[in-house]
Order: sequence, then C-alpha cells, then structure tokens
Amino acid sequence: MSGFAPQPVDDVAVATIRTLAADVVGKANSGHPGAPMGMAPAAHVLFSRFFNTNPKNSKWYNRDRFVLSNGHACALQYILLHLLGFKLSLDDLKAFRQLDSLTPGHPEAGHTDGVEVTTGPLGQGFANAVGLGIAQAHMAALYNKPGFNLIDNYTYVFTGDGCLMEGVASEAASLAGHLQLGNLIYIYDDNHISIDGDTAVAFTENVEQRFLSYGWQVLHVDNGDSDLAAIYNAIAEAKKEKSKPTIIRLRTTIGFGSKQQGTHGVHGSPLKADDIAALKTKFGFPSDQTFHIPQQTYDAYKAVALKGAKLEEEWNALLAKYAQQYPKEHAELSRRIAGELPEGWEKSLPVYTPADAAQASRKLSEIVLTSICPVLPELMGGSADLTGSNLTRVKDAVDFQPPSTGLGNYTGTYIRYGVREHAMGAIANGLAAYGGIIPFVGTFLNFVSYAAGAVRLSALSHHQVIWVATHDSIGLGEDGPTHQPVETVAHFRAMPNVDVWRPADGNETSAAYLAALTRKTTPSILALSRQNLPNLEASTVERAMKGGYVVHEVEGEDLTFVSTGSEVSIVLEAAKKLEAEGVKARVVSLPCWEIFDSQPEEYRLSVLRSGAPILSVEAYNTMGWAKYSHEQFGLPSWGASGPYKQVYEKFGLTGDNLSVVGKKVVSFYKKKGGEVISPLVKAL
Amino acid sequence: MSGFAPQPVDDVAVATIRTLAADVVGKANSGHPGAPMGMAPAAHVLFSRFFNTNPKNSKWYNRDRFVLSNGHACALQYILLHLLGFKLSLDDLKAFRQLDSLTPGHPEAGHTDGVEVTTGPLGQGFANAVGLGIAQAHMAALYNKPGFNLIDNYTYVFTGDGCLMEGVASEAASLAGHLQLGNLIYIYDDNHISIDGDTAVAFTENVEQRFLSYGWQVLHVDNGDSDLAAIYNAIAEAKKEKSKPTIIRLRTTIGFGSKQQGTHGVHGSPLKADDIAALKTKFGFPSDQTFHIPQQTYDAYKAVALKGAKLEEEWNALLAKYAQQYPKEHAELSRRIAGELPEGWEKSLPVYTPADAAQASRKLSEIVLTSICPVLPELMGGSADLTGSNLTRVKDAVDFQPPSTGLGNYTGTYIRYGVREHAMGAIANGLAAYGGIIPFVGTFLNFVSYAAGAVRLSALSHHQVIWVATHDSIGLGEDGPTHQPVETVAHFRAMPNVDVWRPADGNETSAAYLAALTRKTTPSILALSRQNLPNLEASTVERAMKGGYVVHEVEGEDLTFVSTGSEVSIVLEAAKKLEAEGVKARVVSLPCWEIFDSQPEEYRLSVLRSGAPILSVEAYNTMGWAKYSHEQFGLPSWGASGPYKQVYEKFGLTGDNLSVVGKKVVSFYKKKGGEVISPLVKAL
Ligand SMILES: [Ca+2]
Ligand SMILES: [Ca+2]
Repeated sequence: MSGFAPQPVDDVAVATIRTLAADVVGKANSGHPGAPMGMAPAAHVLFSRFFNTNPKNSKWYNRDRFVLSNGHACALQYILLHLLGFKLSLDDLKAFRQLDSLTPGHPEAGHTDGVEVTTGPLGQGFANAVGLGIAQAHMAALYNKPGFNLIDNYTYVFTGDGCLMEGVASEAASLAGHLQLGNLIYIYDDNHISIDGDTAVAFTENVEQRFLSYGWQVLHVDNGDSDLAAIYNAIAEAKKEKSKPTIIRLRTTIGFGSKQQGTHGVHGSPLKADDIAALKTKFGFPSDQTFHIPQQTYDAYKAVALKGAKLEEEWNALLAKYAQQYPKEHAELSRRIAGELPEGWEKSLPVYTPADAAQASRKLSEIVLTSICPVLPELMGGSADLTGSNLTRVKDAVDFQPPSTGLGNYTGTYIRYGVREHAMGAIANGLAAYGGIIPFVGTFLNFVSYAAGAVRLSALSHHQVIWVATHDSIGLGEDGPTHQPVETVAHFRAMPNVDVWRPADGNETSAAYLAALTRKTTPSILALSRQNLPNLEASTVERAMKGGYVVHEVEGEDLTFVSTGSEVSIVLEAAKKLEAEGVKARVVSLPCWEIFDSQPEEYRLSVLRSGAPILSVEAYNTMGWAKYSHEQFGLPSWGASGPYKQVYEKFGLTGDNLSVVGKKVVSFYKKKGGEVISPLVKAL
Repeated sequence: MSGFAPQPVDDVAVATIRTLAADVVGKANSGHPGAPMGMAPAAHVLFSRFFNTNPKNSKWYNRDRFVLSNGHACALQYILLHLLGFKLSLDDLKAFRQLDSLTPGHPEAGHTDGVEVTTGPLGQGFANAVGLGIAQAHMAALYNKPGFNLIDNYTYVFTGDGCLMEGVASEAASLAGHLQLGNLIYIYDDNHISIDGDTAVAFTENVEQRFLSYGWQVLHVDNGDSDLAAIYNAIAEAKKEKSKPTIIRLRTTIGFGSKQQGTHGVHGSPLKADDIAALKTKFGFPSDQTFHIPQQTYDAYKAVALKGAKLEEEWNALLAKYAQQYPKEHAELSRRIAGELPEGWEKSLPVYTPADAAQASRKLSEIVLTSICPVLPELMGGSADLTGSNLTRVKDAVDFQPPSTGLGNYTGTYIRYGVREHAMGAIANGLAAYGGIIPFVGTFLNFVSYAAGAVRLSALSHHQVIWVATHDSIGLGEDGPTHQPVETVAHFRAMPNVDVWRPADGNETSAAYLAALTRKTTPSILALSRQNLPNLEASTVERAMKGGYVVHEVEGEDLTFVSTGSEVSIVLEAAKKLEAEGVKARVVSLPCWEIFDSQPEEYRLSVLRSGAPILSVEAYNTMGWAKYSHEQFGLPSWGASGPYKQVYEKFGLTGDNLSVVGKKVVSFYKKKGGEVISPLVKAL
C-alpha cells in the first residue's frame, strides 16, 4: 500500500544527519543537538522523497518552502542545506555559531542561502508559513491557467511544542484552518521535552483535538525515530488533502542515539565527547572522525538536487510557453517575481494643496490605497478586525477567502485576519518572503505592540511589510489610555531597519507610501490619525521624502519647533501666535526619523540648524527627541479618555499653550547666553 | 430540576440594563452598545444570583472577581457597578467617556471602584482571570484550614469572540486547563459579530472543541437573550466542576432590542435616537426619558449588596476566630492582604565587595531570590520555559501544580508557564490584582516584547510585577541577533510607570530587587546578563537605589562616561586606560533611569555635571541617551551570533576602543570651545 521504497542509503543518511548534528553543536560548544537528532528521519524522508528545490537557484519561484519553526534546531537545517548543495560548505558547518559565519545561532533569512524565513523566536515560523501558504494559493489563483500549473508548491514546516504553546501560532493556526490552506504540511516534533523538562509540567492539552477544532487534518506517526515508511505515508496523505492544512504529530525521541536521549539534557547543550563517540559507533560511523559524511549520503542528496534542477528547467520551459499564450499575465507575474514596481505607478499617488479639505490621515491613507491598488496588484491588504476603522479595504476589493465560504476567493487581495495582530504581522512576513507580494496590514498603532515579535523579524529579515497603524495618539479620544499609544513609536524608532512614518497631511501621507513601497528591504509603520488634519502650505511629496523639512521658514529665528503628524498644524498655530508677539519661530516637520537620518549632513543641518533653540512637540513620551532638539514637549504619562480636542487641551497641546512654552524656551536660552548649536553637531 | 427561581423584577432589571446601555453610549455619542445589550441577561443572572460582593468594600479579600475581558462593553460593567452601589453615581454614568470621568472608554483598574483589572486590549482580561484563579487556589491551599474556608471565591469572566481570537487568551486557556482551575467560570458572548461584520469572515474554528482540547468543561446556552433559567443552570453547573475551568458558550443577539440587533451596526456606534426610543417602548419603559432606572431594579441590586455586606461580616467573624486558632497564619495572611512586607526583610538582601567573584547578574538575581524567598512568602515566581536559563527557581521551591499531576501542589510558589510569555505577563497582572501576591516572571529580555501588551497594562494599572529578564544583550553571544535585544529597553523606558533596571554588579542587583519590591504600584523589568560581571569598587545598595551614581570620581575631568549593566566595567577599563594617557575620565552608572529622574535636581546635576562632555555607552540602540549625555556610543544596528567576547569586540565595546572613542569626544569638545553644560540643564 505504501508508496515508500526504502533505499540502502536511507539509514546511512539519517545517521549522517544525526552524527553531523552532534559534531556541529559539539565543535561550536553551543547549540541544540537534541531536536536535529530526533527530527533526522523526518527531514531525510521529506527532503529525499518530496521536497522540490533547486539548490543552485534558491530563489526559483515554484520551489517548495521549508520552515524550521523550532529555529534553535538549525543545525538540522544547515546540515540539509549543505547536503543538498546550497551555498553552505562543510567549513560553514564547522563555523556554526561563530562570528560572521553563514551559520548563526538561529536561521536568518537573507543571510544564509536557502533559509526562507528567520526563526528561533518561537511561533514565528509557524505563522510565517501560513503567509507562505496564502501567497501560493493567491498567486496560483491569479496566474495558473489550464495546462499551466505554474505555481503549485507546498510549504513544509517543522515545529516543536514550544511553537505550539505560543499564542502567535494559535492565531495563525485558526486562520489557516478557516482559509482551508491545503498547501500547508506541518510536522510536529512531539518529543515531550522542553527546556523546563518534561512538557507534562505545562503542556498537557490535547494537541490533535485542538488542531481538529481549527479545521485541520490531523495525522500522527507513532515511531518517528525509525519508521520511515510511516513518515512517508503521512506526508503523502497530507499532500492529498487539498482543502485543509495538515499537522502530523510525530512521536520522536529527542537526541536519539545519545546516552541521554529522551531527556532535556540533550535539548540545549552539546553532547559530551564520549557520548558523541559512542553515538558514531552505534551508527557504524568512525568514532574518531568528526564531520564524517559518507559519499553515499552526498550522492543521495545530489540526486535530489539534480531532480530539482530539472524541475526548474521544465518550469522555465512552461513559463516560456505561458509567455506566448498569456503575455499580459506573464509580464505581470515576471515583474512581480522580480520585485519591480510598474513604471510610473507613483503618478497615481494623490497630491494636495492647502485648499483641499482637512482629512484624517487614516482617510488620506485610504485615498492612497484606492489610487494605487488598481495599478499595484502585488498589494495584499488586511486588518485585524478593524477594517472600518483602519480604512484598509478599498471599494470593490475582493476578500481572500476559500470559495466555499461564498465570501470571496483566492484571487482576493484583502485578508480578514480576525483579532490576531501578532499572527497578522508574522503572516505578512511570510507573504513578503514568498515574493511577488507586498503586504499591508492594519490595526491601531497601540496594538502593533501585540505584534512586536513579528515586526522585529520583518526588520531583521528585510521583509517589506507596511503597517497601516491608525488611531495613532490621544487624538483617538474616547477610547482612552488603554488604546492611546505613548511609547509605541519610541519602540519602533529604536528598532533597526524600520521606517516609522507619522505624516502631517495629504502630501506627507503620499510620501509615506512612496517610501514604504520603494524601500524594498525595510518594513514601514505608518502612524495615522483618527482626527482631521489640514493640508500644509509647504508640504510636497518630494520634500516629505527627505524625512524632514522646513514647513515654515523665517530668517533670524528665535526658536525652531520640530514636530510630527497631527501636532505639526498645532505647532504652526503656535508659531503664528508667537509671530504676532514678535517672536520669530520656524517650524520643521519630521515625519520619518530614519529617512531624515540618511540625508546628507549639510541638508540635515540646514533643517535643524544652529542659532536658536529647537523645541520638539509630539503627543507621545519624548523619548529620543533630545537627538533632534534642545527641549522636548510631550505627554508626561498616559493619555486620557474624552473627546479628543479636550484631551489635547488637557495636555497643553494647543497653539496657545505651545506659544507660551515656546517663549519660556526662548527666554531660557537668551538668559543662558552663548551660541546655540544644533544638537546634530556631534563628535560621534 | 432547575434551582432558578424567577422573580418579577428579572425582566425589568434586564430591560433596565439594556436601555441604560443605549442611553449611556447615546449620551456620550461614543462607545459600544451592542455587547452590553446582548449580555444584559447573563449579567443580571450572574450578579443577582451568584456573585458575592460587598459594594461598600470593593477590596474585601474573598469577594468574587468579575472580569469584563471584552472591555469595550464597559457600559455594562459601569451600569452594574452603579446598580450594585459601588462608588459610581448616575452622574458618572452620564459622564461616560468624558474627560477625567470615572467612566473612561475602557475599564481601568485603580481608577474606578470595583474594576479588578484593566481591559479593552483584547485577550488581556481573559488571561488576567487565570492569574486571579491561580491566586485563589494558592491562597486557599496555604491558608484555608478545616472549618475555615476563608478563601473560596470564584472568578467570573465575560469574553467576546475578539478575546478568543487573541493568542494571549489561547496561551492562558491552555495553562488554565493544565492547572485544573475549577474556580474559573467564563461566559463567552457568542454573538457572531465582530467589527469586520460576521465572525464567519475570520473565525470559524470550533470553539467548544478547542476548549475541550485544553481540558476545560464546556457548556452552552442556546438562548442567551431571554432564557434566564438556562443561564442560571449553566453557571450552577460550572460551579460544581472543581477541577476544570468552565466556559459557557452563550448564544446572544448583539444589540438585542435595537432595530439593528444582530448586526455589526450596533457593535461600536451609538444607536440612533429613534431606535433608542423604540427600544424603550418595546421594553415598557418611558420612551421620552433617559437614564430611567425603575426603583424595583435598584431594590433588587440593593438586596444583592446587602447580602454581600452580610457575607463580609460573617467572613470577618470567621477571620477573627481564625486569628485565635492560627495566629501565625493569620498574621501572615493579614500582612499579605495589607500589601506590607515583613519588618526587616531587606536585611536578607546580599551585599558584595570588590573581592567577591565576578558573576552573571542572572546568577546574582538567583542569589537574591534564594535569600528572600524564604522571608517573602508572597513571592510567586515562574518562567516561560526558561527556568534553567533565567535561574528563577530557587532550590527546594515547590511547583504550583494540581496535586493529581504528582508534580507539585497548589501551595507551590513556582509556576511553569510554558512558552507563553504574553499570557505569563497577563497572568502576573491577575496575580498582582488579586492581592497578597508579588509575582516575578522570567524570560529572555528580548521576549518581554512578546508580552508588551501585558506589560503596558501592568504599568497603566499599577500592578507590581517583576520581570527577571535575562540574557539582556549581545552578551548572550551565540544565540545571535534573533535573541539579542537592542531596542527593548528603549521601549520600556519610554513606557510610563515601568522601572527598567540594568544592574552592573551584585549590589546593584540587590538594589534592583529592593526597589522592585518596595515600589508597590510600579512594575519593574530587571535586565540581567548571561555573562559574568565583576563587583564594582564604588557600588552599594544605597547608592544604586538613587538610580544613578558616580562609580569612579575624579576632579577636573576631561570626560564623564555614563553606562549601565555589563558595560559599566568595560567603561571603567576605558577610564583607566585614559588616565594612563593623562585624560581624566569619570564614570557614572545609571542602572535605573526612572528612579534617577525622580532624584532632586541638585543630586542629578552632581552626577551628570557640567564642565566636560558626557559620553553614554550601552550595548543597545542609543535611543534616549541624548537626554543624559552629549555623545552616545551603542550598537549601530543588530547584534551578531558568536562567542560573546568576540561580539563585544566586533562592536567596539572594549576598554581599548572606548578609550579611543573617549579621546575623540574630548578633543571634539576642546576644539568646539565654550563651556560644556550638562544635558540635564533644561528650560522644560
Ligand atoms: Ca520539544
Ligand atoms: Ca462579538
């Protein structure tokens, strides 16, 4: 019955992986040998029998995707990448966890050839894979044609109990079941061990029943240590189920072959030298050699690689035929795979004059999306159940839904994420990692913090994900301090490789999108207001694209205000009041610190110039503003619940009060005497 | 069969709640009427038939706890608090969502009498309640005696589908099932509506099956709109199950009674005036009156309050008897309820001299815990499956586990949270909210970010929760950038009412605990090293308790270094090297910004004084340091995987390099000329 055809090399290959894992971690004297040793049989069966990959081109679009959600087991992934012939040498394996190696302590996308997504922070890979699955279903629905099954890859995931305990995985699993993603195959390494010891101390739920409740197919393999046929049959069964994700509960022995197998002693520490030697002897390997790889193991994996190279060749031929028959689709698909935006798309971005009506920047964002979605089919939007508040769904959008629901279909570009911010962020990383898709996701700015773990990995992995983060301050009013971010932008401004935008008006909102869409390796967070904002006299998309610019210029100023978003127009009002009192105040808008920081020094010093004190104003905690200003005005603590204008007033964020504060600053620096030097003038 | 005895007032009371909800939201012209109207019958049955509370003393220790996890439905909670006679007047209801009212947009603990935990951010209340349940089980196991059932309250939770979609709730639910918490009764408002419309767009999992998989008792009520007897029976059934949490799936019609009932039109917007009028007519209420409360409704709830007052009286009498029979337990319990630490406990804190061996601050933390846990029984520890890394479990600790597991019992003070950081944070909030317990929780500093939503509510709600956040920087070495925080402390330093500590040695670690344990209304995050740190010459607990102090003093300095944690000793090395070259460098340790900021200005200016440039050094993003220093040295981006000393070297965080950087700073400011003024000298 089984389609599994055992080969003599199978046991050797499994033993190779196990002994290599022990050696890799042993040489580093750091890492996790247990899970790689336990998962070796599943890895071997998957990669030798099922997995479509061309190691010579790790970016082949229709490759199967592999996600090691339990990223601490990365010795396993590195070993397989090496055996398959990816750009990872034996020396790289020997440099495991060493400085500047290609084999860091956890797998990093963009760093190591063949690693699709960054894992290690538990639960992330589990959820990333749901994004990879959505992407495949979507691209297939859009571009496959009769006779042209161009996009039909599977996503395979290894996951441990740690990932299954994380909420982000629960969120993603529930959504994956709802979306009926039959292209997802998870293998759960049920080894009963976590860092605290037996999983019985904290994890006694019925995992199979839980995944059934999500609408998954649930399979299990009782002997994952050696029953290769059972593993094969389970994966084959999983592939047959087209309208449910599958999880295979694979009972394994952690650290199989070690004297300490089955205990948490093999989880996160290298095996002892004598244990490694005994292990090798047990598997018939020379006990005195390290990093021993039998030729037959190499040969077996070389065959896989050759098969994969041939698959890509055939695929390329099919694509060439497709180009003939469907030139328009082919052109678009090729452009998307290449990650290029269509020529002239940016002409669709709306521009504004001061005569245009004041609007909330969340509304301005909706206007941008309405303009650009038709010309950028790669945009896949969504919201964590705040669609009507985030204004992320443009009219006539089709929901990404299983056709059987009657609510949409897989060509749809709008994802109903449910109240699942963390999974949304991680799924967006998967969408971006798949290629051909630029995801944007919506929630309140305050709840981007729920997804901090995923945003961090967007940034570290260079995934272009756009957060439409509305209700960005006390300006949301009545919902109160539980919903009013005061610390959130500081967090993401301190995070490397994230652009935080806080546009002040229409042109700045268009600039934010222009930047977010052209910065291909950087996620962006657009902090957008609930309340209306007037269009500024001085704003243009081009000027805003510098990250910071002068919105009100005067010569011989007594004071420069610097501000962002909804406070810019308030500060302009304060400047006007000051002018009436003979105090000359300039105003700078600084919608994106990260991009402003990347401008030439000369430009930056012309915007935040020496000669007069600079006062920052923002309706947040002032953290970080001392870098750009001499004095800071912000919220002393949390916000407050009430109609938003009253809340602004309570905290002194009015033109009247800020003109008083401004005068106080001016007189302080006059009294202090001496030249006032720009805070940008620094030794370091 | 049913114990439910219907009263004529029941329908009137339900109608009162429904019409009041419409009025409260209507007058505010902001808020969520739908869920309060839908949940009115369940609320009435719960509070009139089951709930033990004394509204005249909202802090009575054995009160039942109520958590409105779907906090946006808070009109319901405020109405009940008013009807029951808590300190919430009809005028307060009329001031719903108005500035500085007692009825903010979402319920805030510590702000409104009778609100146990802050809710609104979805999923938090669900998980807080698990903490309340653990606390009850623990305190009961410790202090109840035969004939003295002093602590036997239930925790009742209302939750919507939004909460159930959140990962934090999934994590908490799995743990609650494992812990067999029979004192938890959740009522799930299954109204099929969320903000995006029908829950069918994103939430089609089988909720009942999911909770069965967690080991919960699952009940359901088909007609939550009017079948009060069925609601009664379900709650009664739930109370009978002593070793499983219960969830009752209550099918309701959102906005019941409105013309738009059952649609998402009633979810987050006030009803129209004519709809409210029609609603009142339908329920036999005067359609032209607002905030109409029939006297019989008041009377019914007054009876509940009187019963509760009597219960507390009886309880106090029982406690007095207990004092006779168990004076020691009584004294301890009373002290804990009062939130007072035992006299002289702080003498148990270890102190160090420079002769003491270098140790990791995570190890120093373990030494503190080992010293203080025996004298502070209110400490309840735990870790998110990193016990052996966080060093949070002291020898001889007993695990908090259901006795049937054989792994511990409910007197245990150590909680195995599993890999569930977010739930851990939210559960700790519940433990703190219960009273008598000071929770500390462990994970890597980097993964406190997974729990950001919960930390935020610790801070906003003044819950004293202590995070033992180990592996606090690139000093964790091989695990690499996925695990190395660079932005995390900036985030929490920007969050109001959180003390972030980064101790440099043993005395500073003791100071961190002293502060964390005595700051009763402030959560603390202790950022602790994986690597060994030498004990400083100048450190004492007392000096460190100022949040910042001079660790190396020189007169007429050319430079002041300011640093934290593991970098302080590196900076001291740099200062030594500079001295050898004739450059005079002072060194300041600033382990806790928040506490340093609260010192008198004179002290602060004596530590970070004018006269020479100040250079900050920290192995993080430099965000925020410009407030304390003229120049900042930190990480340019992410960390790196490798042995930690090599990682420090890679980023120039060595005595050698920092002495070079220091010289650069000195010469820059010499060249610049003019007086160097402390950055603490400010106008605002
Ligand atoms: Ca495991
Ligand atoms: Ca609902």
